[in-house]
Amino acid sequence: MSWFDDSIMARKAIARGETRAEASLTEAEQGDYPYVYSAAITPKLRIDPGTVVTCETHDAFEGAIRSESDKPSEILNFPFLNPQNGPIWINGAEKGDTVAVYIESIVPRGPQPRGTTVIMPEFGGLVPTADTALLTAPLPERVRKVNITAEEGTVWNDRITLPYEPFIGTIGTAPQIEAISSLVPDYYGGNMDLPDVAPGAVVYLPVQAEGGFLFLGDCHAAQGDGELCGVAIEHPTVTTVRVDLIKGWTIRTPRLENADFYMTVGSSRPMEDAARGAYRELIRWLAADFGFDEIDAYMLLTQCGRVRLGNMVDPKYTLGASVLKSIVGIAK
Amino acid sequence: MSWFDDSIMARKAIARGETRAEASLTEAEQGDYPYVYSAAITPKLRIDPGTVVTCETHDAFEGAIRSESDKPSEILNFPFLNPQNGPIWINGAEKGDTVAVYIESIVPRGPQPRGTTVIMPEFGGLVPTADTALLTAPLPERVRKVNITAEEGTVWNDRITLPYEPFIGTIGTAPQIEAISSLVPDYYGGNMDLPDVAPGAVVYLPVQAEGGFLFLGDCHAAQGDGELCGVAIEHPTVTTVRVDLIKGWTIRTPRLENADFYMTVGSSRPMEDAARGAYRELIRWLAADFGFDEIDAYMLLTQCGRVRLGNMVDPKYTLGASVLKSIVGIAK
Amino acid sequence: MSWFDDSIMARKAIARGETRAEASLTEAEQGDYPYVYSAAITPKLRIDPGTVVTCETHDAFEGAIRSESDKPSEILNFPFLNPQNGPIWINGAEKGDTVAVYIESIVPRGPQPRGTTVIMPEFGGLVPTADTALLTAPLPERVRKVNITAEEGTVWNDRITLPYEPFIGTIGTAPQIEAISSLVPDYYGGNMDLPDVAPGAVVYLPVQAEGGFLFLGDCHAAQGDGELCGVAIEHPTVTTVRVDLIKGWTIRTPRLENADFYMTVGSSRPMEDAARGAYRELIRWLAADFGFDEIDAYMLLTQCGRVRLGNMVDPKYTLGASVLKSIVGIAK
Amino acid sequence: MSWFDDSIMARKAIARGETRAEASLTEAEQGDYPYVYSAAITPKLRIDPGTVVTCETHDAFEGAIRSESDKPSEILNFPFLNPQNGPIWINGAEKGDTVAVYIESIVPRGPQPRGTTVIMPEFGGLVPTADTALLTAPLPERVRKVNITAEEGTVWNDRITLPYEPFIGTIGTAPQIEAISSLVPDYYGGNMDLPDVAPGAVVYLPVQAEGGFLFLGDCHAAQGDGELCGVAIEHPTVTTVRVDLIKGWTIRTPRLENADFYMTVGSSRPMEDAARGAYRELIRWLAADFGFDEIDAYMLLTQCGRVRLGNMVDPKYTLGASVLKSIVGIAK
Repeated sequence: MSWFDDSIMARKAIARGETRAEASLTEAEQGDYPYVYSAAITPKLRIDPGTVVTCETHDAFEGAIRSESDKPSEILNFPFLNPQNGPIWINGAEKGDTVAVYIESIVPRGPQPRGTTVIMPEFGGLVPTADTALLTAPLPERVRKVNITAEEGTVWNDRITLPYEPFIGTIGTAPQIEAISSLVPDYYGGNMDLPDVAPGAVVYLPVQAEGGFLFLGDCHAAQGDGELCGVAIEHPTVTTVRVDLIKGWTIRTPRLENADFYMTVGSSRPMEDAARGAYRELIRWLAADFGFDEIDAYMLLTQCGRVRLGNMVDPKYTLGASVLKSIVGIAK
Repeated sequence: MSWFDDSIMARKAIARGETRAEASLTEAEQGDYPYVYSAAITPKLRIDPGTVVTCETHDAFEGAIRSESDKPSEILNFPFLNPQNGPIWINGAEKGDTVAVYIESIVPRGPQPRGTTVIMPEFGGLVPTADTALLTAPLPERVRKVNITAEEGTVWNDRITLPYEPFIGTIGTAPQIEAISSLVPDYYGGNMDLPDVAPGAVVYLPVQAEGGFLFLGDCHAAQGDGELCGVAIEHPTVTTVRVDLIKGWTIRTPRLENADFYMTVGSSRPMEDAARGAYRELIRWLAADFGFDEIDAYMLLTQCGRVRLGNMVDPKYTLGASVLKSIVGIAK
Repeated sequence: MSWFDDSIMARKAIARGETRAEASLTEAEQGDYPYVYSAAITPKLRIDPGTVVTCETHDAFEGAIRSESDKPSEILNFPFLNPQNGPIWINGAEKGDTVAVYIESIVPRGPQPRGTTVIMPEFGGLVPTADTALLTAPLPERVRKVNITAEEGTVWNDRITLPYEPFIGTIGTAPQIEAISSLVPDYYGGNMDLPDVAPGAVVYLPVQAEGGFLFLGDCHAAQGDGELCGVAIEHPTVTTVRVDLIKGWTIRTPRLENADFYMTVGSSRPMEDAARGAYRELIRWLAADFGFDEIDAYMLLTQCGRVRLGNMVDPKYTLGASVLKSIVGIAK
Repeated sequence: MSWFDDSIMARKAIARGETRAEASLTEAEQGDYPYVYSAAITPKLRIDPGTVVTCETHDAFEGAIRSESDKPSEILNFPFLNPQNGPIWINGAEKGDTVAVYIESIVPRGPQPRGTTVIMPEFGGLVPTADTALLTAPLPERVRKVNITAEEGTVWNDRITLPYEPFIGTIGTAPQIEAISSLVPDYYGGNMDLPDVAPGAVVYLPVQAEGGFLFLGDCHAAQGDGELCGVAIEHPTVTTVRVDLIKGWTIRTPRLENADFYMTVGSSRPMEDAARGAYRELIRWLAADFGFDEIDAYMLLTQCGRVRLGNMVDPKYTLGASVLKSIVGIAK
């Protein structure tokens, strides 16, 4: 894992990206799973930087959709959706610091068919919603239950199996004074639904409140760009993350690095604003830590920047903008 | 006030829109002014339907900007902005009910120059912001302090005086489980910045949590459509509202009526989504309570619907869609 | 008509806003009605500044929808919609000049029921469209034919009659090298659907190509803000305009003045961009011709600017931003 | 090139995707390069399906920017930008047919430094523009001239060389009655700036007017997702395309296939509408030609659809939505 040695986490975090302790949030230890990102919730766990935390995550419906004959609109109880593990208090975290989360692994759990995706009224990228409020009748509801294994992937039907490419759909810190639904992505992370938030990546999250208050959940076994109908292959997992803390490194919005690239994440509406936010932050990063002047970074990203659409369905749309390490080198 | 006798408030609310008690939230009674809309805050006041509440409101900056030589970016401490009176617990209010607020009066208070408007970085309709994130340099900061009286209005300069047309910039109920910054407008009301929320109007707000949790503040002495630079003529006031409760009338988003029209309010991004939301709700209202079929209402509003832009600067844009009572008659 | 004496048209145009000649474009004189705004079309009429032109306009469907049992999707032949009178060549007009059009009168013509509005697939503000492409089924088509007289207005049904408030839905000059569908609004005017383009107003249009190439059509007997379903009360008319030319006054986008206000017009998507465009142009106008500095104009319009939503259904949305003459005085 | 044998072009086009004739549009043969997509322009070349056409393309500035000390705002003469080769008349093409263009090769030409990128006022993704009209001052203009070879790529600076990954920035057919600037992307193609329009891909373009009127130009030596500052590595090329015709296959918007995937292209504003348009068309394609029901395709693409952002700077934003052939098989 040589790239990791050069990661910002390994070079700048308190525990240098190393594992120095272990902890867990099993279903029993977690108890109730919160539905908001808030620093007012009593932490479920308190850790030092350098702790690996193993979480038993629920799916976004908390397992309530069990059969293809279920009707989501009758079963689901908005706003009690997208239950999260945490909050995890990180000792020493203060406003202006950054939490670094290395994603070690995501393993599916629970009885088959473990995977769930649904069409439900007023939600999704190609239907009228509460935000894009139109008069046309909704699509019929539909539930799809699928088998998932880490080895074989997601069995869509006899003909199609999608590889198991799990990631954390929702992860973030708490806002300073707000308590925001876990359905929302924003400057602190949250429901970004960005497939790059996957095993082998480091996510950097800005600390807004003392202790950081890390939340995560909503793991997906597969997801296309945009999470088109609003519901990926939702599934319960055992998700293992290594959590560290970078003192004094202040970021406005989530960042990510993996073996290949550096990424910034923008969440906003309309979608061009998410793209603007992600790219502006990437330019500022290149200017701050890679020796570019801002305009030069702007011109260079015009030629080699990459965009990954996370979601086009949540209260804010999420996009990641990235640049290859092979082009810009390693951050200071 | 004959139109009021035919108002929904007068006909459907528990106290029939009448004054049956009085209460106040002076600065002393209010104590600390909250910065979030939340049902987790201990109510500052508990009232029965039919209570008139007199509130001493702060301006959106809590009076911190005192001189034209002040620099907003140094004085203001985000997210501690837009302080609110309340929350007010309304006895009997339950999820699915509607709070009716008749705005009796707004009177300026405090030493002159009472009025404040500013240009500050990353905020406003014609500058780059955190959402519309661009690379160009911000405008220089600027503070404008102005004298305001109810009789003469807002003295802009030697040549221009704007009439005193006060309204409540931010008013709403608490979300069910979230705590949202008072800078945000949404389905529960909040920072709508809609000039029709003025003395003589009734605002209808959906109850999400037991007790309703009414908040209000951010009164403006004058404001154009869109609140272009993001800061209207902010001023401290004595604002008097009559609060009543309509049991079993469930609305999705704020509504308003006055002598002339019925209005629905949409808050969303992009702006067309705010317009869609407001108009769809108005169509559904016409279908539910005025005897139109939905498509007929859609076609009729095409010919006579009216749109008022509240803000084009907040985290969500706000628009009101309205129709004249002289056209559609009185609601059932 | 004293305000007109102080209008920009009366003070700056070649013919000083006076009537110096008369001409017409009857159905016979017009012959074929163009469907694009283009300087490549042979002018139907050549006039000097100061000419009053009386036009027999068609409705947007060229009269093809005659009965409520007609099915628009079978009758209408996209892109052959929204037929225009013109182009009118204005002698002396060159790129960088401005055409001034004083709207003298609009009178309904043709057999009753003269008025038409329809619901058609993939068009309208509250349905999926080619742009906002969703999967939900379209609304059923519907045609509404209505009687219109100038005296009594538009008879919607037994209960509702809307006053006759006619305006020109589509008016503009030709782009320099493009030929754009008359369904589109843009910097040169076009399908703005802005109700303020009404008798008693002066519209200012930027000249892009020698001769100006003035087009107009698509008159509405009534329309609400946004033209919600996409089709106002369309009707054939006799529309009379006085056309003048202002040499060397260069404007980027259409402007308008009437007895009460000055307005700039923005057409763009998303809707906030239309608002930004309109307001920025109004600020620049206040700075250029009313003695304001740009930031002061920005702050003042925040307190008293007004927004009129033209359309929320065309390929670009149109908004007008305006300010009262009673506040800012008369333009230099 | 086995995948090509299974391509829609090879199976359905008149010449079966084969080369049956050769033609060219050298600078001399082309003569003047048009700046609009229009069926009113006299074709520069008439070909049968199955003809390979070799085009000498200009860069988007027609070579006018020669040195880093040039000032784009003084040299460029809007709207005379983005010169195109063509139009090419395709014998037999009628409205409702589809033109298939296999891109054989793109080779840089002209003296070094051949490559140009610039920052210019009111254009780009992270600056105020005519559409996103703000008050902040523009960035300083800047020109970057770079050496390009097919072998070594684009030399950005001493440290960074970008691989030569050329594609056609602007390609399309003529609208039926309009003449649209080559700066615009839309349903007929145009200025999509989509990097997948590269050698080895087949682009499918809808015929709107008899003869099809194929245009192409604006080749880029490198470009990131979104073409952030608005100007990729522009360069003159020899671009060779094989042009064929599919009778009776009607598509609404451009499509693309290569060895790996099928793609649909959406161009609209706001950006989410471009994404909606692309994805809806992909769903309809899966339903029409791959044996899916529409809702099933919607749910499947939620799990495996891919999005490529073309431009976030042109008058409409362009996005491609794609799905792997390895998942959905080969089109009927």
